Amino acid sequence: MNLSPHHPRFLSLKTRDDLVKAVASGLVAPQGLIAQGRGEAFDYLIGERTMPTASIATLAAVALLLEAKSPVISVNGNAAALAGKEIVNLASTVSASIEVNLFHRTLDREKLIARHLKNFGAKEILGVGSAASKTIGGISSPRAKVDPNGIGKADVVLIPLEDGDRAQALENQGKRVIAIDLNPMSRTSQVASVTIVDNLVRAIPALIESSRKMKKLPQSQLEKYISSFNNERNLANAIEQIVQYLQGWIKN
Amino acid sequence: MNLSPHHPRFLSLKTRDDLVKAVASGLVAPQGLIAQGRGEAFDYLIGERTMPTASIATLAAVALLLEAKSPVISVNGNAAALAGKEIVNLASTVSASIEVNLFHRTLDREKLIARHLKNFGAKEILGVGSAASKTIGGISSPRAKVDPNGIGKADVVLIPLEDGDRAQALENQGKRVIAIDLNPMSRTSQVASVTIVDNLVRAIPALIESSRKMKKLPQSQLEKYISSFNNERNLANAIEQIVQYLQGWIKN
Repeated sequence: MNLSPHHPRFLSLKTRDDLVKAVASGLVAPQGLIAQGRGEAFDYLIGERTMPTASIATLAAVALLLEAKSPVISVNGNAAALAGKEIVNLASTVSASIEVNLFHRTLDREKLIARHLKNFGAKEILGVGSAASKTIGGISSPRAKVDPNGIGKADVVLIPLEDGDRAQALENQGKRVIAIDLNPMSRTSQVASVTIVDNLVRAIPALIESSRKMKKLPQSQLEKYISSFNNERNLANAIEQIVQYLQGWIKN
Repeated sequence: MNLSPHHPRFLSLKTRDDLVKAVASGLVAPQGLIAQGRGEAFDYLIGERTMPTASIATLAAVALLLEAKSPVISVNGNAAALAGKEIVNLASTVSASIEVNLFHRTLDREKLIARHLKNFGAKEILGVGSAASKTIGGISSPRAKVDPNGIGKADVVLIPLEDGDRAQALENQGKRVIAIDLNPMSRTSQVASVTIVDNLVRAIPALIESSRKMKKLPQSQLEKYISSFNNERNLANAIEQIVQYLQGWIKN
């Protein structure tokens, strides 16, 4: 790209260029760029930093992951492109499986994402091609197809960059959904058990760090993190922080 | 796209698909999809409807366009794809020139956009290739290049979907900038003379409608619309409306 490093938004433009390249290589669907834009807008509204409410949600999320019998991290193209290495690291830290689950599903992209994650050390990637043989009701997109050995039998599913449709369907199946979503008002955010309102590229490293510390905690303490967490209240606090940011722009 | 019309966001997803096709045809740069996503997020925050503050800005914008000696509408790929027909219609109504001005500039895309607009009846499209021979200072992107017969000599420039860099540079040159931008806090919004905080696909038809009515007004009345308009106050009102929307989400 013919862009001067003196442009005031150089870094942000650089990240965009990287994602555009991931589209060219087939890792990210073109629609993934639109999702990135939506995320950018909300990230801007939270000051492009991790809010205290996100840190609180991260602790509850880690407790859920560590307590889970069959935790699964669901990955799409954007998640793989933006935080592939970190997702593999997190999965290993909390002993979770990784499953590819795409809204704009093609076998080529599924394989590409699996290879991308394996390059970062992942041993097995679930949900590729015919492995996604189970159908979850209530989802009117190709995301309904899941791996019976992954999301199909999972009790906790971490879904970064999600659509509300599926988050609701998974919760309806009795699974606990952990969402990473920059929009605290999205259906995904509202229906998840734990919503981390933060940018994926900050949220996953924070999850890894907390997982390492909390692994040593007794079960009773992990359960306290879960029982004391109120997602509705936490989301309201996140919205309140955005309101405060916006009010700073209103000069009287 | 393999998507059920029962999906709760079917229409929004359909629009996204149309823009993805415009990328495939070369009309829109891939980065344009990211811009679309940012717009979507802010559109969501204003309730996906034209706010009263946008209607007030539209009146001031039309007065500026009708009063101008050499008004120019600057067009990029997204604007052409989303509202090409309406932009040609508006240009004809207010006797403005149309100039192609791209952030991700290629001669192919410039020609494609020009042809696209000519299909809708535009007679001349400025700024294509070597016609953009003048350089405007203070812009560290290919957008610095403008047509001496268009933006180069314009007194009023309508810039839908803009970057703040150029909006500032044009204002510094003594040109009055009319911005259409869904983010009331963006640099573009903040530095423009008149900012319409609205979705392009709603804003351009509203500009056409008001232009038709206001064309009959005497100059003194047009000048009143301009002198009574305060962009800073109007933007603060737009932000205030977003705050009210957000507060509706906070359940106590």
